[in-house]
Amino acid sequence: MHAQSRIPVAVLGATGMVGQRFIELLRDHPWFELVALAASDRHEGRAYAEVAKWRLPGSEMPISAATLPVVACQPEALPADVKIAFSALPTEVAGEVEAHAAAIAQQRKQRGWPGSIITNANCSATPLVMALKPLQQAFGLRKVMVTTLQAISGAGYPGLPSYDILDNAIPYIGGEEQKVESETRKMLGTWEEGQGFTDAPLVVSAQCNRVATREGHLECASIELASDASPEEIIAAWQNYRPEPQRLKLPSAPEQALIYRTEPDRPQTLLDRDAGHGMSVTMGRLRRCPILSYKFVLLGHNTIRGAAGGSILNAELCVSKGLI
Amino acid sequence: MHAQSRIPVAVLGATGMVGQRFIELLRDHPWFELVALAASDRHEGRAYAEVAKWRLPGSEMPISAATLPVVACQPEALPADVKIAFSALPTEVAGEVEAHAAAIAQQRKQRGWPGSIITNANCSATPLVMALKPLQQAFGLRKVMVTTLQAISGAGYPGLPSYDILDNAIPYIGGEEQKVESETRKMLGTWEEGQGFTDAPLVVSAQCNRVATREGHLECASIELASDASPEEIIAAWQNYRPEPQRLKLPSAPEQALIYRTEPDRPQTLLDRDAGHGMSVTMGRLRRCPILSYKFVLLGHNTIRGAAGGSILNAELCVSKGLI
Amino acid sequence: MHAQSRIPVAVLGATGMVGQRFIELLRDHPWFELVALAASDRHEGRAYAEVAKWRLPGSEMPISAATLPVVACQPEALPADVKIAFSALPTEVAGEVEAHAAAIAQQRKQRGWPGSIITNANCSATPLVMALKPLQQAFGLRKVMVTTLQAISGAGYPGLPSYDILDNAIPYIGGEEQKVESETRKMLGTWEEGQGFTDAPLVVSAQCNRVATREGHLECASIELASDASPEEIIAAWQNYRPEPQRLKLPSAPEQALIYRTEPDRPQTLLDRDAGHGMSVTMGRLRRCPILSYKFVLLGHNTIRGAAGGSILNAELCVSKGLI
Amino acid sequence: MHAQSRIPVAVLGATGMVGQRFIELLRDHPWFELVALAASDRHEGRAYAEVAKWRLPGSEMPISAATLPVVACQPEALPADVKIAFSALPTEVAGEVEAHAAAIAQQRKQRGWPGSIITNANCSATPLVMALKPLQQAFGLRKVMVTTLQAISGAGYPGLPSYDILDNAIPYIGGEEQKVESETRKMLGTWEEGQGFTDAPLVVSAQCNRVATREGHLECASIELASDASPEEIIAAWQNYRPEPQRLKLPSAPEQALIYRTEPDRPQTLLDRDAGHGMSVTMGRLRRCPILSYKFVLLGHNTIRGAAGGSILNAELCVSKGLI
Repeated sequence: MHAQSRIPVAVLGATGMVGQRFIELLRDHPWFELVALAASDRHEGRAYAEVAKWRLPGSEMPISAATLPVVACQPEALPADVKIAFSALPTEVAGEVEAHAAAIAQQRKQRGWPGSIITNANCSATPLVMALKPLQQAFGLRKVMVTTLQAISGAGYPGLPSYDILDNAIPYIGGEEQKVESETRKMLGTWEEGQGFTDAPLVVSAQCNRVATREGHLECASIELASDASPEEIIAAWQNYRPEPQRLKLPSAPEQALIYRTEPDRPQTLLDRDAGHGMSVTMGRLRRCPILSYKFVLLGHNTIRGAAGGSILNAELCVSKGLI
Repeated sequence: MHAQSRIPVAVLGATGMVGQRFIELLRDHPWFELVALAASDRHEGRAYAEVAKWRLPGSEMPISAATLPVVACQPEALPADVKIAFSALPTEVAGEVEAHAAAIAQQRKQRGWPGSIITNANCSATPLVMALKPLQQAFGLRKVMVTTLQAISGAGYPGLPSYDILDNAIPYIGGEEQKVESETRKMLGTWEEGQGFTDAPLVVSAQCNRVATREGHLECASIELASDASPEEIIAAWQNYRPEPQRLKLPSAPEQALIYRTEPDRPQTLLDRDAGHGMSVTMGRLRRCPILSYKFVLLGHNTIRGAAGGSILNAELCVSKGLI
Repeated sequence: MHAQSRIPVAVLGATGMVGQRFIELLRDHPWFELVALAASDRHEGRAYAEVAKWRLPGSEMPISAATLPVVACQPEALPADVKIAFSALPTEVAGEVEAHAAAIAQQRKQRGWPGSIITNANCSATPLVMALKPLQQAFGLRKVMVTTLQAISGAGYPGLPSYDILDNAIPYIGGEEQKVESETRKMLGTWEEGQGFTDAPLVVSAQCNRVATREGHLECASIELASDASPEEIIAAWQNYRPEPQRLKLPSAPEQALIYRTEPDRPQTLLDRDAGHGMSVTMGRLRRCPILSYKFVLLGHNTIRGAAGGSILNAELCVSKGLI
Repeated sequence: MHAQSRIPVAVLGATGMVGQRFIELLRDHPWFELVALAASDRHEGRAYAEVAKWRLPGSEMPISAATLPVVACQPEALPADVKIAFSALPTEVAGEVEAHAAAIAQQRKQRGWPGSIITNANCSATPLVMALKPLQQAFGLRKVMVTTLQAISGAGYPGLPSYDILDNAIPYIGGEEQKVESETRKMLGTWEEGQGFTDAPLVVSAQCNRVATREGHLECASIELASDASPEEIIAAWQNYRPEPQRLKLPSAPEQALIYRTEPDRPQTLLDRDAGHGMSVTMGRLRRCPILSYKFVLLGHNTIRGAAGGSILNAELCVSKGLI
């Protein structure tokens, strides 16, 4: 795909934490060209660099983004040639705008517009599902008990006040446990034309905590398999997992979707969140659980794999399959 | 009990984190008088203030402790009138010294000495057991799944390097999960003269994490009861729990052994660890678990309730029952 | 002073960080009785417990405050018998309300009302001035260079986003350096009836940083004295300092206004901020400066001595002198 | 320079924090090939991967290092073909070993060996000197007052216990202030064959603090120039600074040695420490100082520019000038 033929894309909610991750990950993307940034109405018409402060450590605001004029967060405000709109909108406003966007997309489609809205799945459910998927396929999965230790970036920006979290752990994230439970069942479920989604026949129980880490959701899982498996078989299922993004060698697909570390104290949030440029999920500490079958620890980067990077990979998959 | 008749006590491992908590909690204790501090051999004979740096925020080294000469960490080095030796020794040296101490105590007993060694239970298992005990009594208890978020002080001093934990969560604490599992069964079990301890018929599965908090172990538990109970009954069991220390109004017993908070985001490590001067255990977020019966969150102060304060309360109980 | 004759007081800005400190410090105050809490208009008429979440670790919302109805943050909304209104308003709204309040107070005074508004000085300048005052008196003071390491609570609540400060230090606090420079000169200056304030003839240069501490502003100062003094004389000047609050034994006055610690690594934010219940200022590390005369480190609790506690002490001083 | 002709180099103190930075930065270095790792005697003969745990976030132990056998930290233990030994030894052991190494090097030189030992300058003085050098050249420099906010990695590993620094700032780093003062004068001074080093005629006063950041030393400086300069001239002096490493385009030289940021709140430790891959020093907040001429903030990465990266750049400079 030539640079001149890159697909024009937009980011909705471009000033937030996830919005900035989208911008960073789309810098020099081989297939997508960022042509529009949508944010709060009050910023409309001003250059992105004027309304947004870059907050990602270790990088600068890409110049190509800095000079883009901000448009309103309404699909009709996007340039007509935009084919993909990535949504980084916070949950509380996402519903309305995304529904609206879908409606617009529908209208445009009726006039021949092939645009799409790509939204994120829950940032805790995503790495959990990645760890579970090959086990579900190989051994069947009945129950999942998971306790999360989630990073502050998951709360967006300004998000969590520092006074709330320094020297603290908070065993509550509004609505998160329900999302982890329902989205895990949904993503491990099936989808059929005409029938829509069917949840996986799976019981999920989640407890979600906020801890003082910047990025990376660590999760302690305990699972019940449908048929028994040895630890070696489980680790092999993870290590041999080659889902489509890897098989298709999509630009954002890490070499290994899943990594299993054998050290007794890994994965750790700080040390493993950037594995595969933040796109791999890392597991470790697999051992028998006296109550369910096995317990283990998993870790995923919440604003990359669990949000912006995951959405971009989804878009790449759609493009490679001709869906967009 | 008059001040002049206070019971002479000693602290073994007096320079460490838990040792300092003992010293702080024994300052002005109505029943016990701290008369000896034992620490590493190399400090022998020097004043405590010379060999130890006070590390507890918000307090100063008690003057009475500062001037005490440090004795070797061997029971025979303790003054002969010491009736209770509180052990704050780290696990790796505790075994030998404590066994030795018990032997000495045995010998002294044979010559009529009524001295005792008081050791700590595991600092994560202790608050868990406190939360479970009234439920076990009222409804029976079959399974306990628990994931902990433990404070850095649990690793002692110097303990955890700051480079390991700042912006990190570590899903591993050596030996801790086994201890939580076995000590929980043991403490919820029974003891009979001649038979010793019998574990409770209970399955426990623990996952232990270290997070960047100073004090306070937060634990996410999921439990299976033997007979069903409503949330109201469970909360009532906690709130009506009046174990012996409360009934006897022991000096270190908090007014409420167990506190249940109704806010959706409590207990929090920072906000609740000092409840009851660090001696109460706080619960919250009781809700049905889709896999076991219920899930909830609990929190205990690891170096107070889970260590020094718990041991002092045990000593008070022994004294009040004439065992010491 | 009998409880029934306690002076009725109010807190303006009662839901914020400093507002809560006022409420905590006024709980059981021997002279003052908290009778009114003023906050944002939108909370008007509701009980304080309904509109405010208690955020101070280690304490609970006092029951007497919990049931008080919130009034609007306008002086005329306060009960007529309120004699002192403590302002905990953030700078950006304080100006207008406080000016308004002063006007109201003026009017009421004209009708015989003896009410007063007590506002805070800057929370970094306050401990600095306390450390400098005895040196200015004894040796004269010409220059002060100060670099601060300020706690996150200084930014109020929600204040500093956690994503901004975890694993970070920020060398900028809007307007703070100017305030430290001007308020230090003002507080070390003189006040004369009819002439108002005259700044001390002193050059102050401040650099202000935010660091990841909860409470306590640490300050590295370098000063030029007008006449030379030995380190012993300087330390003696601090240790012998007995300002009026101590001489009058005011309820909120700590035993020692100033503490000098001789350990090489003190004061430390965590270990010394609560000295004198947060009302003492701690100094340490006095040594010659190759550029000015001396350098040293000082520390004060920003929301207690530097804000709520300092204001209450000022009010006590006014009352004891018959000014209120 | 071809890969086969890369210069064989060794790292002394290879298991520590700075040692690991050396290993990371030497991975794929175009001129140097890491052939030996020296560490504590007790590790001698074992593979590096067996004795060292990799602690740098975001990277893995390079495979080429993992398999190297560890040799004793004595120069005669190094392979004979090693031309450069980078020392990452902690101060307390460095003196002896480095002196020994220098002696060995001397002996080898006498037999025709061209080996060299490269040691680090102080990690706080290095970025300070970089910021000051162009000002000294352009305007003359008389006085430097500096207060540092230093990262925990500066204390090595295990270094600072987490219990000492979480929610704390420590205004003391043993010996550091003297080093900053003397090394700054030395590095800004002159060296002449036969005469050795002559300190710059400069007064330096330093106050050093430890704060809870992982990497990056932030420094608040106030300076007195010999001749006046406008802010624009100072900033131009920084921006136009092209020292030899940049002119020679050395492999480790960042494009810009010095970066000046115009935002009011930069540099920040987290956001700017990785500028130029950790090799640039970032300045900001230049403004007049009421006491000396100017004040400003500077930031350098302590284990890269201030240690391993700086040493490698020095070695590159020596190689490019034919000194090694």
